[in-house]
Amino acid sequence: MNGHGNGGCAAAGVPRAAFGKADKGADFANYFCTYAFLYHQKEMLSDRVRMDAYYDSIFKNARHFKGKTVLDVGTGSGILAIWSAQAGARKVYAVEATDMATHARALVAGNKMENVVEVIEGSVEDISLPEQVDIIISEWMGYFLVRESMFDSVIYARDKWLKPTGMMYPSHARMWLAPMQTNLGERKMQEYQHAMDDWSRFTQETLDQYGVDMGVLNTPYRAEQQKYFLQTSVWNNLHPNQIIGEPALVKEFDCLKATLEHTASLRSQFRIPIDPGNLQIAGFAGWFDVHFRGCASDAADNDVELTTAPSVSDTTHWGQQVFLLHPPINTRNGDVLVGELEVTRSKQNHRLMDVKVVHNLERRDSPPAQPTISQFHIE
Amino acid sequence: MNGHGNGGCAAAGVPRAAFGKADKGADFANYFCTYAFLYHQKEMLSDRVRMDAYYDSIFKNARHFKGKTVLDVGTGSGILAIWSAQAGARKVYAVEATDMATHARALVAGNKMENVVEVIEGSVEDISLPEQVDIIISEWMGYFLVRESMFDSVIYARDKWLKPTGMMYPSHARMWLAPMQTNLGERKMQEYQHAMDDWSRFTQETLDQYGVDMGVLNTPYRAEQQKYFLQTSVWNNLHPNQIIGEPALVKEFDCLKATLEHTASLRSQFRIPIDPGNLQIAGFAGWFDVHFRGCASDAADNDVELTTAPSVSDTTHWGQQVFLLHPPINTRNGDVLVGELEVTRSKQNHRLMDVKVVHNLERRDSPPAQPTISQFHIE
Repeated sequence: MNGHGNGGCAAAGVPRAAFGKADKGADFANYFCTYAFLYHQKEMLSDRVRMDAYYDSIFKNARHFKGKTVLDVGTGSGILAIWSAQAGARKVYAVEATDMATHARALVAGNKMENVVEVIEGSVEDISLPEQVDIIISEWMGYFLVRESMFDSVIYARDKWLKPTGMMYPSHARMWLAPMQTNLGERKMQEYQHAMDDWSRFTQETLDQYGVDMGVLNTPYRAEQQKYFLQTSVWNNLHPNQIIGEPALVKEFDCLKATLEHTASLRSQFRIPIDPGNLQIAGFAGWFDVHFRGCASDAADNDVELTTAPSVSDTTHWGQQVFLLHPPINTRNGDVLVGELEVTRSKQNHRLMDVKVVHNLERRDSPPAQPTISQFHIE
Repeated sequence: MNGHGNGGCAAAGVPRAAFGKADKGADFANYFCTYAFLYHQKEMLSDRVRMDAYYDSIFKNARHFKGKTVLDVGTGSGILAIWSAQAGARKVYAVEATDMATHARALVAGNKMENVVEVIEGSVEDISLPEQVDIIISEWMGYFLVRESMFDSVIYARDKWLKPTGMMYPSHARMWLAPMQTNLGERKMQEYQHAMDDWSRFTQETLDQYGVDMGVLNTPYRAEQQKYFLQTSVWNNLHPNQIIGEPALVKEFDCLKATLEHTASLRSQFRIPIDPGNLQIAGFAGWFDVHFRGCASDAADNDVELTTAPSVSDTTHWGQQVFLLHPPINTRNGDVLVGELEVTRSKQNHRLMDVKVVHNLERRDSPPAQPTISQFHIE
């Protein structure tokens, strides 16, 4: 559900004030508020791949919606709720935490669906519904699937409001990781070095002109710049040619069964033969896909896939997340990239992620090397 | 105390969650957090005009500091506290709300001032000092002086911690407004119109492809884009030639006497002869200056001025705030621009400002025209 360049000070390593899930004021200021802008909603509504997938998932499976009750978690402009009603739902509860709910209500009325769609302003954790529902539909996915941690809210809603016979739209979600080529790493390294040269000049001038030695801050400043330039994942729309090796499936969710323990911490091993070899792995690319399959007892008539894999013509506003390696890894034909991915919530902001990749190149006739540990932040 | 492009979702017109001064979590997420970055501190420490003014105000008036107690409100990196100690202060309390306080402590120690400077992490409203102080020093000024509303914290600290004989550094602050030339207004109008054309295409496509009529959102979308492109003040470093008329002094503060009532709402009349006339007033420029004069009973040996007026060589990171007029005002020789400026706190975020300018062109041998009301937001 991202906007590219979603602002907020969400990244700040900050003050003593408790900054956990309980701090609703901060959560609204950091996270929810962007979604209150119509411009941001329009960005997402202009993503044709996203729109086509949800549209098809509903209308090609209208049978699932006809005469049923639906809960739309995070309705935003109200689009999914309106489509659900147009597909024949008896009743749709469209929950939205921001005052975008006011616009959703207007849009519902403007499309003559006010008898079916009820817009409720509030967090899905806080609101109350008069009944349980047959379908929970939501567009909750963030960069690399889990950024924003909105899936937690969908799980909460499912446990509280979905009938035992109910189904989830989407029904499944997967995370993928692949080694990639790019010159972005080189550029970021240059920018980092430039920032450190600039700091060096600055500390010298501050000492000369103002009699204050900033040298004691060299180490934290370097750490801050390293985090910013080298360790923070980068949004990008990659060309498929940039992927060098078979993408590894690192996580699968069944949206009917996933728990908060499953989403809190993801850990996964991978083994990726590098193809064709004699290439430089400049980083990892991460992306996701979701599927709309209905449920075991009532499969969708038409499976629909929404993928954010690198593509020439079917790009999305999610792009992919690029985790740059410094230094890059030089490979030979036959090499296999082996490792483990771990994705955890940032302590400072549960909606942001820390990503750790422990990796190693296996080479024929070579002794195993020490694994490299690369740490990243999804901001 | 701004950084150019100070992020945060501070501008969002947002959710039901109470968003006033009481909401500390949101306040930290929106406002304080930027100051926790060393990069941001460095930006401000690299502002030579700012640094020179504070440096001179202290060291050219070292007599005020020798053997005295000082409170530095919002110490950031600790620079003002260190200078105060170097100038001979007996004790300096350096208060900082963010975890930048940790770096300030390190900087104090690195410059061998730990026996004089005590860094205290917390909001100045919350912390406790063992004694009252002779001087309160602070760099609290935001865009157009009052953005960020940090002066309120300085006033609070003064009323609680300054001795009756104490003084403020700076001692005085002024706000200025002047008519200006620029082509920025034209550009913003084009960007706005482009955004509306784009919206028009978008709503047509959404209806054609997805069967949902977004037309009911035309009005709020237009309002949102107007606010963004036309009514939000713009940061700029103006050339003095762009000012067409004598700048009007719209507010003066004596930092020893100012009250929260004074800062909550500013209203001021102005009369500006347009010089040379036959020009187009494309907007208003707003800026501030501060002075370091000591106090009535103990004047500074050397008055120091820090001004952010348009300048060729002495620019600051504050720049000026540009309030664009749509349409611009065409003037003739002899015209006088008459009006009233009102600056109030934004309801959604007390650290942001709403600016209203009621203005009128007085022309010889012409009947008075209806005043124009122009509304702006400082985000």
